[in-house]
Amino acid sequence: MKPFKGERIFTPGPVELPDRVREVLGKQIIHHRTPEFTEAFLETRELFKRLVDCSSENFVFFSSSGTGAMEASVLNFFEEGDKVIAVVGGKFGERWAELAHHWKLRVIPHNVEWGKSVNPQDLERLLKENPDCRGILIQMSESSTGAFHDVRSVAQLTKDSDVLLVVDAITALGVYDMKPHRWGLDVVVGGSQKAFMLPPGLSMLWFSEKAEDRLTDRAYYLSVKKELKKQREGQTAWTPAISLILALRESLSMLLEDGMEAVEKRYRLLSKATRAAVEALGLKVFPENPTVSLTAVAPEDIPADEIRKALLKEGVRVAGGQGKLKGKIFRISHMGMDVNDTVVAIAALEKVIRAKNPSAGSALEAFLGEVSR
Amino acid sequence: MKPFKGERIFTPGPVELPDRVREVLGKQIIHHRTPEFTEAFLETRELFKRLVDCSSENFVFFSSSGTGAMEASVLNFFEEGDKVIAVVGGKFGERWAELAHHWKLRVIPHNVEWGKSVNPQDLERLLKENPDCRGILIQMSESSTGAFHDVRSVAQLTKDSDVLLVVDAITALGVYDMKPHRWGLDVVVGGSQKAFMLPPGLSMLWFSEKAEDRLTDRAYYLSVKKELKKQREGQTAWTPAISLILALRESLSMLLEDGMEAVEKRYRLLSKATRAAVEALGLKVFPENPTVSLTAVAPEDIPADEIRKALLKEGVRVAGGQGKLKGKIFRISHMGMDVNDTVVAIAALEKVIRAKNPSAGSALEAFLGEVSR
Repeated sequence: MKPFKGERIFTPGPVELPDRVREVLGKQIIHHRTPEFTEAFLETRELFKRLVDCSSENFVFFSSSGTGAMEASVLNFFEEGDKVIAVVGGKFGERWAELAHHWKLRVIPHNVEWGKSVNPQDLERLLKENPDCRGILIQMSESSTGAFHDVRSVAQLTKDSDVLLVVDAITALGVYDMKPHRWGLDVVVGGSQKAFMLPPGLSMLWFSEKAEDRLTDRAYYLSVKKELKKQREGQTAWTPAISLILALRESLSMLLEDGMEAVEKRYRLLSKATRAAVEALGLKVFPENPTVSLTAVAPEDIPADEIRKALLKEGVRVAGGQGKLKGKIFRISHMGMDVNDTVVAIAALEKVIRAKNPSAGSALEAFLGEVSR
Repeated sequence: MKPFKGERIFTPGPVELPDRVREVLGKQIIHHRTPEFTEAFLETRELFKRLVDCSSENFVFFSSSGTGAMEASVLNFFEEGDKVIAVVGGKFGERWAELAHHWKLRVIPHNVEWGKSVNPQDLERLLKENPDCRGILIQMSESSTGAFHDVRSVAQLTKDSDVLLVVDAITALGVYDMKPHRWGLDVVVGGSQKAFMLPPGLSMLWFSEKAEDRLTDRAYYLSVKKELKKQREGQTAWTPAISLILALRESLSMLLEDGMEAVEKRYRLLSKATRAAVEALGLKVFPENPTVSLTAVAPEDIPADEIRKALLKEGVRVAGGQGKLKGKIFRISHMGMDVNDTVVAIAALEKVIRAKNPSAGSALEAFLGEVSR
């Protein structure tokens, strides 16, 4: 039966907007060159500091999608000719390599089989072979494959060296209880339409003191220096995405009311329970070491896109595969979701799979088993 | 008396969001890689074509503020070392020169006294002196001074040459009934928070066939080539500002329901009536040849900021001066406004000025005299 109230969105960005966020977005605009905006912006910055558990002012927001903040990472912290290692284990790893190449860094691509996680020992060896390496570009959560890269272990290799560890955390920030400063990360990039539960159009870039020393003047619109100078005083270099900043204040409040430890715990539970559900149905979880922000599923007997389309008929929108995984996997996001949301996707999945394979186990039972422990 | 219902916004960006726009912005998000989004986006593109009265597909939207689209103009249509003339007659002219310099063009700044409009004959002479010039960067409406630059006349100098006429129309597009193709403009830049009556975060870049031949690969996030390839099919290279695209469809519909001829007529009337009101109060209109999108006022006997703050107490927010005009002028925007909106600002202004100068004439009478003709 066609869902009466339309579809639910379980894609790894954009994710559903909470009512509290929608309320802010629907309000009349305020002007940005005002004490009111400055106050709201400084409040937002204070909340962001709590999110990353670091009192440093070294972070900026850009009016751009996540790719803009990735570009900013490459432009603001590296000079032409700088040698960097790009961990390429999915579509977003490819984007790092492409961006670094575009802005004339010397890129050593480190290919990781899609779905696998990087082995820090391989990076250690690569760093030894390339003593002139200036940075490692990596995803924490490679959302195209659902794989988790252990950036904390990688940081052990870089933290006492000149190598900047640049982490695309677009589907990790706001999911994991990240401590970039304590972990030894150097640049961390986030995006509004992921765990921040906002529309796309705002990105975040946090950086370490080590990265600060490497700041360049290469960027203009995406200049960290220009933005930081203004943003630490509660203003912006260019006109900010006012409504997204105000909505970010709201969603950061939501995250911090719960606390990032609880938030990560919720995502760990949702992803674990979803994996159990998927496996109960006889489907395979695609990545070896999955991120908790989404679950990528590789069905073996039924085409992934057939399942995705059948789910859509049930009012459940999941994402398909990207790049070379097109048609091979589907992805259920957990970002912005709780148990009551996720059970909807699991129920639909059980219905869809059982229609094809009546002897499949019970996804709901497996899911509820995990969440009731 | 403190206004019971808060302030009205008469700043030249952001401008007040119409209810129809707010309704769209407050809705649940939709996913962008869907037929639904593609359909909405293609509809938006069709409306945009009607706005600029040109059937060409040569335009893209960026998830950025207007400055991002200005940067895109410099990066996508010029190579390092290209010589350009930048018309510098205000803060945004300065931004052109700065951007062009940043991206290593050779910039010939053509300074115009702030508040004055460029004399096309001066540009003609400059072009003759610089036969290797590859472009002219100019504002159509220099919102920092309120001056209008006659880009149609400038186009007469460039249209049969290799010189690209690059127009920052951030406070002109959606105000004037622009025909960039027929006028001979080459690049036209717009911004969401101006006459499109949306929050900031979306910019527009239209370009001519002549400009198309000059497209470079210098940009990545702000690449016209990458975006155009996707956008003409109803998709985007990077995650788009989904909610702003959907809201743009709404505001373009509003503009086109009225028709751009009527829209321009409304702004001509509002600005003319506002100028009459300002002069009736004994204040001076700052620019020689004003844009119709805003009215910049240079009061002679009372400090501009004193008036601005007094207006704010009446619930009317106008903008102050920028750069070297700080404290010297205040600016009343007409974008997104009609007579019933503007009369509120005029009434407050009359009240404020009369409190300082009881013998001042009647602004309201002058205003109503003009709008009742």
